[in-house]
Amino acid sequence: MAKKKGLTPRSEDFSAWYNEVVLQAELADYSPVRGSMVIRPWGYGLWENMQRALDDMFKATGHSNAYFPLLIPMSFIEREKEHVKGFRPELAVVTHAGGKELEEPYVVRPTSETIIYAMYAKWVQSYRDLPLLLNQWGNVMRWELRTRLFLRTAEFLWQEGHTAHASEDEAEAESRLILGIYRRFMEEWMAMPPVTGLKTEAEKFAGAVRSYACEALMQDRKALQAATSHMLGQNFAKQFGLTFQSEEGREEYAWNTSWGASTRLVGGLVMTHGDDAGVVAPPKLAPTQVVVVPIARSDEQAVSVTERARRIAEELTNSGVRVAVDDRRHLSPGAKFFEWERKGVPMRVEIGPRDMERGEVVVASRVVAAGAPRKEAMAEADAVAGIGPRLDDLQEHLRAVALARREEGSVRQEVGSPEELAELLDGGAGFVYSGWSGDPAAEARAKEVAKASIRVIPDEEFRSETPPAQCLGGGKARMEVVWARAY
Amino acid sequence: MAKKKGLTPRSEDFSAWYNEVVLQAELADYSPVRGSMVIRPWGYGLWENMQRALDDMFKATGHSNAYFPLLIPMSFIEREKEHVKGFRPELAVVTHAGGKELEEPYVVRPTSETIIYAMYAKWVQSYRDLPLLLNQWGNVMRWELRTRLFLRTAEFLWQEGHTAHASEDEAEAESRLILGIYRRFMEEWMAMPPVTGLKTEAEKFAGAVRSYACEALMQDRKALQAATSHMLGQNFAKQFGLTFQSEEGREEYAWNTSWGASTRLVGGLVMTHGDDAGVVAPPKLAPTQVVVVPIARSDEQAVSVTERARRIAEELTNSGVRVAVDDRRHLSPGAKFFEWERKGVPMRVEIGPRDMERGEVVVASRVVAAGAPRKEAMAEADAVAGIGPRLDDLQEHLRAVALARREEGSVRQEVGSPEELAELLDGGAGFVYSGWSGDPAAEARAKEVAKASIRVIPDEEFRSETPPAQCLGGGKARMEVVWARAY
Repeated sequence: MAKKKGLTPRSEDFSAWYNEVVLQAELADYSPVRGSMVIRPWGYGLWENMQRALDDMFKATGHSNAYFPLLIPMSFIEREKEHVKGFRPELAVVTHAGGKELEEPYVVRPTSETIIYAMYAKWVQSYRDLPLLLNQWGNVMRWELRTRLFLRTAEFLWQEGHTAHASEDEAEAESRLILGIYRRFMEEWMAMPPVTGLKTEAEKFAGAVRSYACEALMQDRKALQAATSHMLGQNFAKQFGLTFQSEEGREEYAWNTSWGASTRLVGGLVMTHGDDAGVVAPPKLAPTQVVVVPIARSDEQAVSVTERARRIAEELTNSGVRVAVDDRRHLSPGAKFFEWERKGVPMRVEIGPRDMERGEVVVASRVVAAGAPRKEAMAEADAVAGIGPRLDDLQEHLRAVALARREEGSVRQEVGSPEELAELLDGGAGFVYSGWSGDPAAEARAKEVAKASIRVIPDEEFRSETPPAQCLGGGKARMEVVWARAY
Repeated sequence: MAKKKGLTPRSEDFSAWYNEVVLQAELADYSPVRGSMVIRPWGYGLWENMQRALDDMFKATGHSNAYFPLLIPMSFIEREKEHVKGFRPELAVVTHAGGKELEEPYVVRPTSETIIYAMYAKWVQSYRDLPLLLNQWGNVMRWELRTRLFLRTAEFLWQEGHTAHASEDEAEAESRLILGIYRRFMEEWMAMPPVTGLKTEAEKFAGAVRSYACEALMQDRKALQAATSHMLGQNFAKQFGLTFQSEEGREEYAWNTSWGASTRLVGGLVMTHGDDAGVVAPPKLAPTQVVVVPIARSDEQAVSVTERARRIAEELTNSGVRVAVDDRRHLSPGAKFFEWERKGVPMRVEIGPRDMERGEVVVASRVVAAGAPRKEAMAEADAVAGIGPRLDDLQEHLRAVALARREEGSVRQEVGSPEELAELLDGGAGFVYSGWSGDPAAEARAKEVAKASIRVIPDEEFRSETPPAQCLGGGKARMEVVWARAY
């Protein structure tokens, strides 16, 4: 039950606001297990809708789901040298099972490349078995020291895709295809348009040849790495003997990709659209899109307005809208409005006895464009027919606002030094587009000085019209990069 | 790629047949992790369809999904004495994480009552917060010594529902409601009609007051516990301080239920419907319901028949059928038929150049009623229009066959002794309905002698018309019980 608790305004302390909103909207809660959270129905409902949308996109492009073991033999994870270096500090280890100490310990998967490619090596013989395009929905564990609800937890839920191909070109195309799927999902479903591009060598996935990422800009002007897609080359294939006989009869190593998106996206959604009243759920992902609230002063009135509220809800359900009727008698309408706003339900329909007499209802939007009314009385039939299009408009409005905010938060100019980068970021810049020579030492120095990292070497369409000429580390730029402080 | 491997006939060695069929149909594979399996796309596709159907039924009855931590503090699992006694021998334990030994070890959840009710204690204050009706889809781990693909694995996937109620009656009604949902799901979706009823004290869930179960009879006349629903009383509420203020203002302990069904159901489906050619997937759960196979002798023919095959597939897709076109050129039609039969795709449409000229296709069913033709040529339009109804008929046919087999395998008679029970089971009986005094000693002795257990004290509609008079342990019967050897 909602208690009328206040939220710290975003402008005062964004981080406090975030934690409060996640807890008060009942998206998640802390658990007695260090670093692990509980995902509550409203947060899980958002995740389920994300899953459904992504899963449909993966399947439409030829991928199937499968399931691989939670536990990975320690010796497997150690086989790819870069991979284990990246993950070793975060491993949780099962040493005892069935009342005995195990001969070889298992790690709880932090990611599943090693166990999956060991299986692929068993399944793939010929080029005819390729491409192999599998995805897994599951939980993984990375023992993080500093955790944040949804954004960084010891256990999280995600999908991890793993594919094997007969050629480098095909693997490269797959990793780019998936990056495009993630981007489209974030734009169309989350209303959170990201910048996409390539990670630098210093920032790429442990074990990858190339990592691509979607980077979204949050309201506090920090970046969120929202999904990644990796071209793994033959690194894992060589360690796990994943070979195939080519069309020409030669024994060759397969080319792999892996890619993932996690419950971190729920945190990204909150930080992209939330306001000082709470969460704002984009209509396409909201577990409940419309709440109908009957308003009555007497028990007698309650019966008839609740009946009418249910009829409206039924009509909305029939037209494909996800709707709930809030007929709790012990809460005032105001308390209900407060609670549903905190959760971010996109629209509300109120109906009282006088509305009913007039054949009217009051329709309220969680968010409206500047100047538009927050509440409108209208004929019941118009409300029912109009809610679908209004939800579509709201989805588009959220996307446009997020896109404008990302661009307002982006600075494109010559950056002459790490100190200048730090100054820009301290001054409120989100994404800073600078020139870079490609020198890792320059990257490392700027990272230290500005407490920021290169989020991506942006894809062509995100690049500045005039490419930067100088590297922020000195000398000439060989490419443009996007800097930000990040979650 | 399918290799033309033979299957051991069921009549020769049912257990060998089962393992072979699971591997050859690519439902699952062994993994390098002791006791854990890999669920391959065809097996996972069956599970996904099961999940969707069950999830819809849970949601339609007011349940929401949530997610709780994988790891459970050792001290939590130890709190409910019966509970830990049941699960201790099977626990996998995380002792190290983040490079350090943990102060308190965690167990990988074997089931989540303890962590979930600890959270409920935090969330529930008043009777207005009840009932709390949550479900979780996830993985659990029970370190079993003897494992079987799908039927008994160290890790498995399942759903576990956990509810809290203000009264014993409500909790009891919930546990019965869910048992009914499981039963309906098994009948309508799996075509695997179970017997339902109450577990004896000796067989109930560790920590429950009462356990209900769905027990299905496999083709080898062994029972499979296919789902369970537990009334937990206040056992866990007392250990975790799950109290609420009642309508009358008193502090009371809540009443809990928990209930689960797992990937074991995939094994049950195989053992219920499979035949010596492979899996038979009930149409409502088959990941692919119809495969369209173009047949051509030349590359030229291949182009036109494949085009036609795709058009037929598109029409079927538009009418809501899950369909695949198998246009692989390196496999003969016979090899394709073999592979899809092994996987259990319910129907096949073949189209060759001469069929095309005549506007015809050949339709083949994976399973047909005795006397009906396995293959029929028919006009293309009739085939497209007729496939939906045929799939419905096939679903019903499978259910009727399974029901008849269950009843043929059931023996209802006075059983005078454990030895007589053993004889009946040795002679091929599946479910033996006997009288029982209720004496645990009689149950234990019969269990030992007959290597069988009481599967359930059956619900009313499954009881024999003439109730048995004598207990198989001697003396008078107080109730009827169902014995079987079980997985």
